[in-house]
Amino acid sequence: MTSPIFQDHYPENVSHCYGCGRLNHLGLQIHTEWEGEESVTRFRPRSEHTAIPGFVYGGLLASLIDCHGTGTAAAAMYREEGRSMDSLPAYRFVTASLKVDYLAPTPLDAVLEIRGRVKEIKGRRVVIEASVSVLGQVTARGEVVAVQMPESFLGRP
Amino acid sequence: MTSPIFQDHYPENVSHCYGCGRLNHLGLQIHTEWEGEESVTRFRPRSEHTAIPGFVYGGLLASLIDCHGTGTAAAAMYREEGRSMDSLPAYRFVTASLKVDYLAPTPLDAVLEIRGRVKEIKGRRVVIEASVSVLGQVTARGEVVAVQMPESFLGRP
Repeated sequence: MTSPIFQDHYPENVSHCYGCGRLNHLGLQIHTEWEGEESVTRFRPRSEHTAIPGFVYGGLLASLIDCHGTGTAAAAMYREEGRSMDSLPAYRFVTASLKVDYLAPTPLDAVLEIRGRVKEIKGRRVVIEASVSVLGQVTARGEVVAVQMPESFLGRP
Repeated sequence: MTSPIFQDHYPENVSHCYGCGRLNHLGLQIHTEWEGEESVTRFRPRSEHTAIPGFVYGGLLASLIDCHGTGTAAAAMYREEGRSMDSLPAYRFVTASLKVDYLAPTPLDAVLEIRGRVKEIKGRRVVIEASVSVLGQVTARGEVVAVQMPESFLGRP
C-alpha cells in the first residue's frame, strides 16, 4: 500500500532537508498526511528546542510551518491533478515567503499539531495557511507561499 | 571590558534558547553585536542544515532572523535609554510575528551574515528589519516584531 505520508514520496535527491527530509538523520523528519481537507503534522519537540525553559523556541515553529507548508503544497498539486504522490513528474516546492504570528507560549513537553489548509493554487504557486496547536489551544498561525521547484533541482534536465 | 555581544548579557534563566542562548549547548548560540547603526550576526551553518544539497533550509534562516531580531530589540532599548546591556532592569524580547522572504538559494558552505536595523521602537514593541547575505549577495529578508518579555519571565516579581 502506498504510504499516506507526503515526505515518503519526495525524490531521493531532495529528501535531505533538515526539516522534512527522511534521509536527514539529524533533522526533524516531520511526517505530514491528509485528514480530510487539512494536512496534519504531529511533532514532539526535543528538550533542547527550548526558548525560555518549558516553552518551544520560535524558530522551531517557523521550521515546522515552513516544511509542513511545502509538503502540503506538493500534496495539493498531486491531488488537484488526481494522481498519486509517487507518480511522475515528482513535485517539490520551495518557500518564497513565510509568515508566523506567535499567539501564546507553546509548551515544550507536548505533541505539537500543525494543521494546514490550501488557501490558493495558481500555476506553480501554492499558498498554505497553517496553525500550531497544543491540546487544542492554537499557539501560532502561519502562512507559506510555496513555489514549485525548478525541475533542474530534481536532477532532471 | 564589557562584552559587545548582546547574548552575553541575557540573564541566566533566559539564556537557554536554542537559537541564541549561550547555555544551550546543542543550540545555534548566535553572537550579535553592533556595527554602527546595524546589528550583525555571522553564522556558519552545520552540514545537516541542508535544504537541497548545498543550500541552507529555510527554517534555519527563519531561526537566525528571529533570534537576531529579539537580540537587536533588547540592545536597541538599552541604547535608547543610554545604559549598558549589563545594567538593570534586564531586557529580553519575545517574537510577536516573523516574516521572511526567500530571495535566492543560500549556500550552505559559507558564513551567513545577518544584518538588522531598528525600524521602530514604541513602548514595549520594537520592529527589526533584517537581511541574510552570503559574500555580499542578499538571499533573504525578514522582519521581526518583538515585544518586551513580561518581567515575570525574567524571574522577578
